[in-house]
Amino acid sequence: MTGAFRVSRGELQSLASSALKAVGVPEPDADAAAAILVTADLQGIDTHGTSRLAAYVTRVRDGVFNAKPDIVVESQSPAVAVIDGDRGLGPVVGSRALDLAVRLAAQNGVAYVGCRNSQHLGALAPYALRATRHGMVCFLGTNAFPSMAPWGGREVKVGNNPLGVGAPRRDAPAFILDIAMSVAARGKIRKAGAKGERIPDGWALDAEGNPTTDPAKALDGYVLPIGGHKGYGLALAVDILAGVLSGGAVSTEVQSLFKQKDKPQQVSFFFLAIDPAKTIGLDTYFERMETLCGLIKDTEPSSVGDPVLLPGEIEARELEIRSRDGIPMEAELLDSIRSLARGEAPSSVPKA
Amino acid sequence: MTGAFRVSRGELQSLASSALKAVGVPEPDADAAAAILVTADLQGIDTHGTSRLAAYVTRVRDGVFNAKPDIVVESQSPAVAVIDGDRGLGPVVGSRALDLAVRLAAQNGVAYVGCRNSQHLGALAPYALRATRHGMVCFLGTNAFPSMAPWGGREVKVGNNPLGVGAPRRDAPAFILDIAMSVAARGKIRKAGAKGERIPDGWALDAEGNPTTDPAKALDGYVLPIGGHKGYGLALAVDILAGVLSGGAVSTEVQSLFKQKDKPQQVSFFFLAIDPAKTIGLDTYFERMETLCGLIKDTEPSSVGDPVLLPGEIEARELEIRSRDGIPMEAELLDSIRSLARGEAPSSVPKA
Repeated sequence: MTGAFRVSRGELQSLASSALKAVGVPEPDADAAAAILVTADLQGIDTHGTSRLAAYVTRVRDGVFNAKPDIVVESQSPAVAVIDGDRGLGPVVGSRALDLAVRLAAQNGVAYVGCRNSQHLGALAPYALRATRHGMVCFLGTNAFPSMAPWGGREVKVGNNPLGVGAPRRDAPAFILDIAMSVAARGKIRKAGAKGERIPDGWALDAEGNPTTDPAKALDGYVLPIGGHKGYGLALAVDILAGVLSGGAVSTEVQSLFKQKDKPQQVSFFFLAIDPAKTIGLDTYFERMETLCGLIKDTEPSSVGDPVLLPGEIEARELEIRSRDGIPMEAELLDSIRSLARGEAPSSVPKA
Repeated sequence: MTGAFRVSRGELQSLASSALKAVGVPEPDADAAAAILVTADLQGIDTHGTSRLAAYVTRVRDGVFNAKPDIVVESQSPAVAVIDGDRGLGPVVGSRALDLAVRLAAQNGVAYVGCRNSQHLGALAPYALRATRHGMVCFLGTNAFPSMAPWGGREVKVGNNPLGVGAPRRDAPAFILDIAMSVAARGKIRKAGAKGERIPDGWALDAEGNPTTDPAKALDGYVLPIGGHKGYGLALAVDILAGVLSGGAVSTEVQSLFKQKDKPQQVSFFFLAIDPAKTIGLDTYFERMETLCGLIKDTEPSSVGDPVLLPGEIEARELEIRSRDGIPMEAELLDSIRSLARGEAPSSVPKA
């Protein structure tokens, strides 16, 4: 985001936490959720950072998101746990689940934690970054309000169900992948529409299932999965790992953060963590990781002066700059967050 | 494959096993590897079934694949193991690793098994099917001889590194996903070239990094990943989960099954297994799985009479038909397999 203002990490963390405490979220939960949102802002993922606070606060005020969830952890096995989020905020339930996965993986070498009955998790990159800072390789995913049709179908049934992967490096920023299973986000289509532009071929179908480059028709239709049947299959795989294995909601059972004001979202997600120290030992792990990253970075670029990037490099660079110089933010958004921190009601809920 | 002949599952299993025993593979290993290849044939994945025997046998005869590997299992943790395949055949090392992952997951709820120093694993679907028959949800992947450029680069550095996912259902064929990270396989491009056809936009770049629809230029260049930077990132994630975490070869360290006659391939792969009985219990798991699959199947199709398919449905149908009626096969291929079973040298190694 470009913006007239730069707000420091510390100030934004404090504002975000205050905004959540103001609607009844207990301090440790508010701090944990704020840390996830501010990390997204630091990583440059502005669409999934503190700009989402107004929507979260609105849903808590509406009584559909639970400010004080009774989060229950069930475990029948040393390396596995399932969490019922009791309609709690995604970043509250998610950061607790991630920390549990990290702890169980440190004990067992690998761990799976599935979560049901939670809400919008936010970006995956902040969770992946946190896992890597604990020395873990992680693999995580969340289901989402459906925006895609099953391959060969013409009804919206499948979320863009993002997948994330994190892997630590010894002296370099971690490998962080955070990708949705759609070719392009609905937000990008909305932006093109607002500018009066067409969208590229291959992004979306209209409501009848025909390819379209018209943003309005695309928004009435469905976004397309990456690689056709491949992205469709991956999105279903995330629904299985997140929703089915946690006993949670799947497919059209998952509700929108923005559209259904009276229903909890029922988002499901999962964290898989693997401790490299328990696979081949840290020395070999880091040597292999540097070999892989070195081979990739040492690739002749398509455009001179535009070096090949590893997943997570852009975000790591933003994190460094924004941690030092502050997070750029439009005055209007910063004002709205300050008003939420004072406990005022959101003036309007921003669109996804 | 269409073919003048149909060979029964039992006969093909016996022929394939004999072909491997003829070059020194011990009987239990030959049977296990044959079972994987024949399952691929039964599932209709003809490109990765017994048609690959000639290549495997040739490499064993050349001394680069090890017929009698000393497969070593290292484990420092109850739910994790790393296997050194000692240049053994992929289906030999792979089926042993899969069975270990299933056993460790039954004990711990989840398990990770990484393998290094093996060879071409074959299709992932037969392994995923086997895991689901043991009641496991599985997530597996293998690295492969590079065919793609890093996103934004113009050198071949990244394999199409397939990912597989399997999830059992109670009274229906399992969910089985088996996808490479490239939009289209090089084999498809070669076929188009042989027929004098162009390939679609978005499949490949030429050696200079420019989009091409010319099969010859595409084969000199590189295939494109699904979703651009997304498929590139997923392919690297597989390299990390398979190669880095097992201490194995990655990226350009992995050799071709067909091109380098004097080098072992050094393929790395991994199996993650999760026991649904240890997450939310089998009753809830199957109920959730049927809800998800039911919602997807109950989708209005884009073309009337062409119902929406779940990943694995086509393969399950083929498996049923071919188990009953036999596997259709060209006379030339069947003759060649019979000749290998008699211990004769392959007349020529087929291309990928």
